[in-house]
Amino acid sequence: MSVGVCAPSGFLASATSCGLKRSGSPDLALVVSESDCTAAGVFTQSLVRAAPVLLDEKTLEENASSIKAVLANAGIANACTGEEGARAAAEMQRQTARVLGCLPEQVLVLSTGVIGVQLDLARIADGLKALYPDLSSEGGEPTARAIMTTDTRPKYRSIQVNSGEGSFTLGAMAKGSGMIHPNMATMLAVITTDAAVPAPILQLLLKQAVDLSFNRISVDGDTSTNDTVLLLANAASGVRIESEASISAFSKALTKLTVELAKDIVRDGEGASRLVELQVKGCRSEADAQKIASTIATSMLVKTAIAGGDPNWGRIVAAAGRAGVSFDPDLAILCIASVQVPELELFSDGKPRSFDRQQAAQIFSADELFITLDLQQGEKSARMWTCDLTTEYVHINADYHT
Amino acid sequence: MSVGVCAPSGFLASATSCGLKRSGSPDLALVVSESDCTAAGVFTQSLVRAAPVLLDEKTLEENASSIKAVLANAGIANACTGEEGARAAAEMQRQTARVLGCLPEQVLVLSTGVIGVQLDLARIADGLKALYPDLSSEGGEPTARAIMTTDTRPKYRSIQVNSGEGSFTLGAMAKGSGMIHPNMATMLAVITTDAAVPAPILQLLLKQAVDLSFNRISVDGDTSTNDTVLLLANAASGVRIESEASISAFSKALTKLTVELAKDIVRDGEGASRLVELQVKGCRSEADAQKIASTIATSMLVKTAIAGGDPNWGRIVAAAGRAGVSFDPDLAILCIASVQVPELELFSDGKPRSFDRQQAAQIFSADELFITLDLQQGEKSARMWTCDLTTEYVHINADYHT
Repeated sequence: MSVGVCAPSGFLASATSCGLKRSGSPDLALVVSESDCTAAGVFTQSLVRAAPVLLDEKTLEENASSIKAVLANAGIANACTGEEGARAAAEMQRQTARVLGCLPEQVLVLSTGVIGVQLDLARIADGLKALYPDLSSEGGEPTARAIMTTDTRPKYRSIQVNSGEGSFTLGAMAKGSGMIHPNMATMLAVITTDAAVPAPILQLLLKQAVDLSFNRISVDGDTSTNDTVLLLANAASGVRIESEASISAFSKALTKLTVELAKDIVRDGEGASRLVELQVKGCRSEADAQKIASTIATSMLVKTAIAGGDPNWGRIVAAAGRAGVSFDPDLAILCIASVQVPELELFSDGKPRSFDRQQAAQIFSADELFITLDLQQGEKSARMWTCDLTTEYVHINADYHT
Repeated sequence: MSVGVCAPSGFLASATSCGLKRSGSPDLALVVSESDCTAAGVFTQSLVRAAPVLLDEKTLEENASSIKAVLANAGIANACTGEEGARAAAEMQRQTARVLGCLPEQVLVLSTGVIGVQLDLARIADGLKALYPDLSSEGGEPTARAIMTTDTRPKYRSIQVNSGEGSFTLGAMAKGSGMIHPNMATMLAVITTDAAVPAPILQLLLKQAVDLSFNRISVDGDTSTNDTVLLLANAASGVRIESEASISAFSKALTKLTVELAKDIVRDGEGASRLVELQVKGCRSEADAQKIASTIATSMLVKTAIAGGDPNWGRIVAAAGRAGVSFDPDLAILCIASVQVPELELFSDGKPRSFDRQQAAQIFSADELFITLDLQQGEKSARMWTCDLTTEYVHINADYHT
């Protein structure tokens, strides 16, 4: 089955174990396009940036219109590794180019895993030899599996779009379970499409989609040295994304795909048992709405309340109050809902409402729940996804040893 | 023994159970000065402010030079309680004034506990009747106990100062265990002194001391609707704090006292097993240093690494990198130490140092450890205290039901 990154035409992929993960699980993945791709990338905002992040940024600046492949490893992040790390990332590029018979600057590289450990390039070279003959359109699932670190399941999706100009496909794989994990750095995603999209448009649309998806999720509030989202477009469908209508259709599909993957990541958050969709609305600006949403989504007290299945609404209001955004608490309205239970108003007019506590507890115990805070100060809003904070999160992150 | 708030001359205190805590533990505390006090207060920066916070601010604005008493209850925070809550806080003031035979505006009130629940004023009135005849200089320990919520032990300290102008005493009690707890809002502190300090100077010195102590601790990054620090000066020692030397001596003692209490709070942090002193230095501004220190001190990954006794330095560097402060990671130097083990350098020149891993693990398993990050960008620094994040924190906060 051609799933994930192999769902669009003309993409092949394969995965292998080259010994970077101590467990011996697959840890090296290669995604190759049969023809040259335009490409775009969005990278971590952290000041401490891993070697592959720096290299990919440079590669995309100089050569965003003829990318051929992405080589990704898990187990070692190649972050905080100094000049030796920079040389290793470049060597990953060269080794891949040699195997594929292309130029090094046609290859993007991704790493995720332990911070501060140097890559073993001989293992990667051996791995590449195994990956090349194995390339196939069946590689979508195994590559999604090979980039996992503390993820409990591979994450891949695809979407087919029938636009006025013909049909094209978007496919993707992602990993990430803590925003950073036990030195298991990172959220990574590789998105492929068989549409033809000029590189500058691709970059613009990717940035927009990431802002509404991967930038709107929080497992633990920590961001990584390695966070990277790459998008490769190989034009194999023959559909050109240039008209306003086609750009809109592509953008919509890309956002939908990335939002679904982002939610997959939160659902698989370290130790998470519930997915929470949080909407903050009625704000004076989108920045205000995002600031409040982010403070609530990362509040340990809100997240533990959700873990406990307890509609402890005071913690949500208190988190909003400390977000650094000015609003009148007496105007705020807090509602919760789940798929099964309709919306309940918990707080308004500056005081608690008399709601059905059993229904509230039922909502807070659902697999997926919705929290809406309306500040009634304006028209702007922001949406975020978060998960609960369980003892399992602490176990995963405290019991991991470097 | 005259300890805590009763250590300075002329302060009496008592505590009782009036039924606000479901457990039946003591939950009402009264601190009274034999003569009028100048007073100062520092309050939560949250927009969502509890009724007693609003009332005390107003009281201190209008009447900072003749405060007589502080009435504090635990069990119910009187936050998010609307107009009924405002009336209840004022009624606490009036009831106390009636019992003591003073004016309502001579009384400050504190509440901590569940958010969004109205106070039972009849219980407080009954409690006050029991508190009044019980007032004594032995009340320092019982009052510190009565304001506890999830605290596992009462926190009180005192310090005697021999200045050129004579000797005076500072005493204090504090509570707080999560920054906010399970709706058990809050960090509270009441500080007393028998020095004579004009109210404007008192306010200035309190603000300075709080900035270096209670504002530098983090248990879970959440701040509360009720956070309050009050300082009452009754002049009973006859020592006047007006000369530059006496102000300096008073300020130094006040800062020492509040830092020690702040550390007591972190040590007793919900589920905490280790106290971490974090210093970020070599910054261009103190604000930069504080921003980075705060990001590290609240990082769930750093805090779980410390819980696991694991010297997972990559998480500390990664947290600094996402703090939003510009610095060159290649110049940063990260060191750790404990009381038993001398300083170890973990990271510098953009790469890991080869340190003794056993010694590093020993430091990260100590009751009290020191983390120093030197950015080498300037001369400014900031100090913070934090604790580890354990499964016990999640238990305490997830298993509490509203």
